[in-house]
Amino acid sequence: MTITLYDLAGQEDDRRFSPYCWRVKMALKHKGLHFETIPWRYTEKDVIAFSEQGLVPVLKDGSAVVVDSWKIALYLEEAYPSRPALFEGGQAMALSHFFNTWAFRTVHPPMLRVLVLDLFSKVHEKDKAYFRESREKRFGMTLEQYGADPKKALADLRGTLEPVRPSLVQNDFVAGKGPGYCDYILFGAFQWARCVSPIRLLDPDDPVYAWRERMLDLFGGFARQAKGYPVWA
Amino acid sequence: MTITLYDLAGQEDDRRFSPYCWRVKMALKHKGLHFETIPWRYTEKDVIAFSEQGLVPVLKDGSAVVVDSWKIALYLEEAYPSRPALFEGGQAMALSHFFNTWAFRTVHPPMLRVLVLDLFSKVHEKDKAYFRESREKRFGMTLEQYGADPKKALADLRGTLEPVRPSLVQNDFVAGKGPGYCDYILFGAFQWARCVSPIRLLDPDDPVYAWRERMLDLFGGFARQAKGYPVWA
Repeated sequence: MTITLYDLAGQEDDRRFSPYCWRVKMALKHKGLHFETIPWRYTEKDVIAFSEQGLVPVLKDGSAVVVDSWKIALYLEEAYPSRPALFEGGQAMALSHFFNTWAFRTVHPPMLRVLVLDLFSKVHEKDKAYFRESREKRFGMTLEQYGADPKKALADLRGTLEPVRPSLVQNDFVAGKGPGYCDYILFGAFQWARCVSPIRLLDPDDPVYAWRERMLDLFGGFARQAKGYPVWA
Repeated sequence: MTITLYDLAGQEDDRRFSPYCWRVKMALKHKGLHFETIPWRYTEKDVIAFSEQGLVPVLKDGSAVVVDSWKIALYLEEAYPSRPALFEGGQAMALSHFFNTWAFRTVHPPMLRVLVLDLFSKVHEKDKAYFRESREKRFGMTLEQYGADPKKALADLRGTLEPVRPSLVQNDFVAGKGPGYCDYILFGAFQWARCVSPIRLLDPDDPVYAWRERMLDLFGGFARQAKGYPVWA
């Protein structure tokens, strides 16, 4: 039975920029599971109506339908216990949950300010009105205002990464010697950027830069091969 | 062989406010190890000269001398592997290291702004000049300037706790079902405050409040019995 992932896509089918879908794709690769992705646009609510909500990632695995990247990670860990673990036990799972919230509340907002206008330019034509309306309502301002100062947003973003740097000096991955789901959480944010924006986010001497290289190399360069911009120095 | 901890003390011997020493005391309790504390003041550098540096916590365990709260936690985990684990495996240890940096860089600064003047009033007379000089150099301003707006600092502090709230709604502890070293990391900051300041830090409906109660109850109310202020609503 093939696992199917509904995966946010832009103007071109193969530009898949959702940070949450990236977490899931990396988790599926980590588990060594075969899966197929179905490109999906924001306004194709009817296509995922079977999931009883309107957002991706949506994972279909046989009769199981799972939504929300965190819940999908928990599902994969429980459904495929003999595959490589995303969480090394309950404490690592609880701390990964903290990391999940930290990334969402701390890293994602400045990242989105950095890339929002590039992202908007890559959103499918039929999604543009939806994207603009829903995001402007959430931000309380226009997309252009939200993304007006990418230099400040970039400085903010680099600042939010402070707590992770000592970890990445000490270990190759946030999870320690090998990657864990926490690494895919943070990496999702960087793939979000890489898929839509040519902006240089990190200095090459930043330990986060070297970590991102390692993440791009995982699973035979799976994430590096995704349509996006090079992450040159 | 008794384990000895050099523990920062204020004007009164039994007001022990160091957040880093609290992490270690809770970790020792978690391991079920008997230990004695020696009250120590900032300027008693000669007393801990044997540790080849000038800060507490300093742990003496037989011939072993260990400094730095994080290194002490790693030492205890390695030296007492049959006792209850502070870290459930390598991934939990790596994520706790991230949590350690996060607390230090994110939670501690606004906490210190909230309590710095109360803290200064509790510092031993012989330490006051040292404390003022070293902190004013670090802050780039006077203690009074640093602590001039405790209301804003308190709002900032509550904001920095955002990423931990969903974890504490879902589980009793940051580490999951039971406390882990990550809980002692964050709890140290709250004991720092409780030992020196009557300020009300948390609303009773804050999930962090209920967690702090659970932490104060651990090990027969060990931390609650420490000399400090009640944490009333």
